[in-house]
Amino acid sequence: MYRPEIKVLDCTLRDGGLINNHDFDDKFVRAVFRAVCASGVDYIELGYRASKDAFSPDKFGSCKFCDEDYIRKIAEGVERTTKISVMVDIGRVDLDQIPPKKDSIVDMVRVACYIKDVDKAIDLVNHFHEKGYETTVNIMAISTVLTPDLDEGLAELAQTPVKAVYIVDSFGALFSEQVHFLVKQYAKHLKPKGIEVGIHCHNHQQLGFGNTIEAIRKGANYLDATIYGIGRAAGNCPLELLLAFLKNPKFDLEPIIEVIEKEVLPLRDKIEWGYIIPYMITGVLNQHPRAAMALRASENKDKFTEFYRSLIHDAEAA
Amino acid sequence: MYRPEIKVLDCTLRDGGLINNHDFDDKFVRAVFRAVCASGVDYIELGYRASKDAFSPDKFGSCKFCDEDYIRKIAEGVERTTKISVMVDIGRVDLDQIPPKKDSIVDMVRVACYIKDVDKAIDLVNHFHEKGYETTVNIMAISTVLTPDLDEGLAELAQTPVKAVYIVDSFGALFSEQVHFLVKQYAKHLKPKGIEVGIHCHNHQQLGFGNTIEAIRKGANYLDATIYGIGRAAGNCPLELLLAFLKNPKFDLEPIIEVIEKEVLPLRDKIEWGYIIPYMITGVLNQHPRAAMALRASENKDKFTEFYRSLIHDAEAA
Repeated sequence: MYRPEIKVLDCTLRDGGLINNHDFDDKFVRAVFRAVCASGVDYIELGYRASKDAFSPDKFGSCKFCDEDYIRKIAEGVERTTKISVMVDIGRVDLDQIPPKKDSIVDMVRVACYIKDVDKAIDLVNHFHEKGYETTVNIMAISTVLTPDLDEGLAELAQTPVKAVYIVDSFGALFSEQVHFLVKQYAKHLKPKGIEVGIHCHNHQQLGFGNTIEAIRKGANYLDATIYGIGRAAGNCPLELLLAFLKNPKFDLEPIIEVIEKEVLPLRDKIEWGYIIPYMITGVLNQHPRAAMALRASENKDKFTEFYRSLIHDAEAA
Repeated sequence: MYRPEIKVLDCTLRDGGLINNHDFDDKFVRAVFRAVCASGVDYIELGYRASKDAFSPDKFGSCKFCDEDYIRKIAEGVERTTKISVMVDIGRVDLDQIPPKKDSIVDMVRVACYIKDVDKAIDLVNHFHEKGYETTVNIMAISTVLTPDLDEGLAELAQTPVKAVYIVDSFGALFSEQVHFLVKQYAKHLKPKGIEVGIHCHNHQQLGFGNTIEAIRKGANYLDATIYGIGRAAGNCPLELLLAFLKNPKFDLEPIIEVIEKEVLPLRDKIEWGYIIPYMITGVLNQHPRAAMALRASENKDKFTEFYRSLIHDAEAA
């Protein structure tokens, strides 16, 4: 699938960091950075640029804050065409700490929000745009959004300088026909203004990659993926699959295979992500994976049947 | 997705048995049988009915041969509407050992073949049909079949009493648009004769479930799946995901979740299947997973980069 407008964004460190409080060692971060740049991927997101008032550096690693100095240290000596992105959450960012683009190594700031906070997201987009950054808005938990609310939000976003607006299937709950519908809704509002549609999938039902393909087929051009699918709960669309599918000669798969072998497999022995039944159950039920994550952190981690019964019971009682 | 024509076939024991020479212990086989019957799935395939001249019972377990007595022992006392299926391979079945349907607990015989052997498959279909069995033909390695050859084979199959003809993505190489194309080709020949289209996916590129959904959308009605995706190499479309997707009230997910917890997780600690990079690589290259299986059985099992380079080099030299 070749389309020159397609941009691939690796968010290995940002979404993967949700498993371990963004506490990766520098060797790992640097290996991922080098591999992604060597593979020719368009963007790499190193983490969040979170306020240290909101999150303590004692509890969270460097990829939670993405200080300029930290990113410069990671990127030092790496040849790249890959642009650098950071994510911000509504209300958890200190705008004074973000320099103008001309003084920053960061190229793009992505604003994550729920549909109710689109107006706040637009404020941030305008702020970062004025400072010279590229921006996106990533609408989370999209599988729970009513269409009129979505239309209203997209109509507002269409009036902004944002580069792309993302469908974020936080719960890994969407099927292909829902992805088709959402891409169409997004495109209707955004494409006439030259704004691209993005897709960020989770793998709770093993559809992270499949749904990304379906979004591409319907016109999404900003594509999120992570190496070996690392990410919260069941993880994300695997970057290695996406690059192989896209077949664009500018991408090189080998550095990604190599970093999986050398760095990601050993990490997988220490922290958990991927298709595991409790995540499948929250995906099927269109719920945040929080209950499943709590189960996996408990001594009852493999008590799938009891967990399934409790969630079905909750659903029936709702 | 409700469509009364849809039939789900569990082939946990048959495809899963390709990992361990079909050498499951009786407790496991009985637990799977009970769970599948309790879940309301339409068919359960217990294994192959292979000739003992072709395969030694010293090396292979009971699910390789599926003797009548063995199946009756497994099924004893289990209440069920689920029908029983066995698979046969061309040239590896002893027809004299297969009784007429009236003397058998088996309901359906599925004939697996490559496109070049369709005529031989048709001979077997006619034989089993005369004995009173339902039949299907499962065309393996479909991602390597030229369309004129496929058309010829399907046109012949359309003249037989077969119930369904399957698309078998043995290499886990297909993407959705190829699945759409294949379902359309199959349906063009088969549907006018009342023969259904089947789909059997492998998960090398994490598309086992996604491609099954795409086949359903385009009209496939015979759907293969296995519990927790167990199967050769990267495994198959997971039954638990498929049942949740189909939402037909006749299906009950809980027995499947329970048997995963109690029986399949412990087995996964002993034998390997699932999304692993060497299988992804053979899937991407549209190759049999045999080289990846050999790698995983060797001491170099995690040497992904070297494996990738060797296969790419072979591909370039071809």
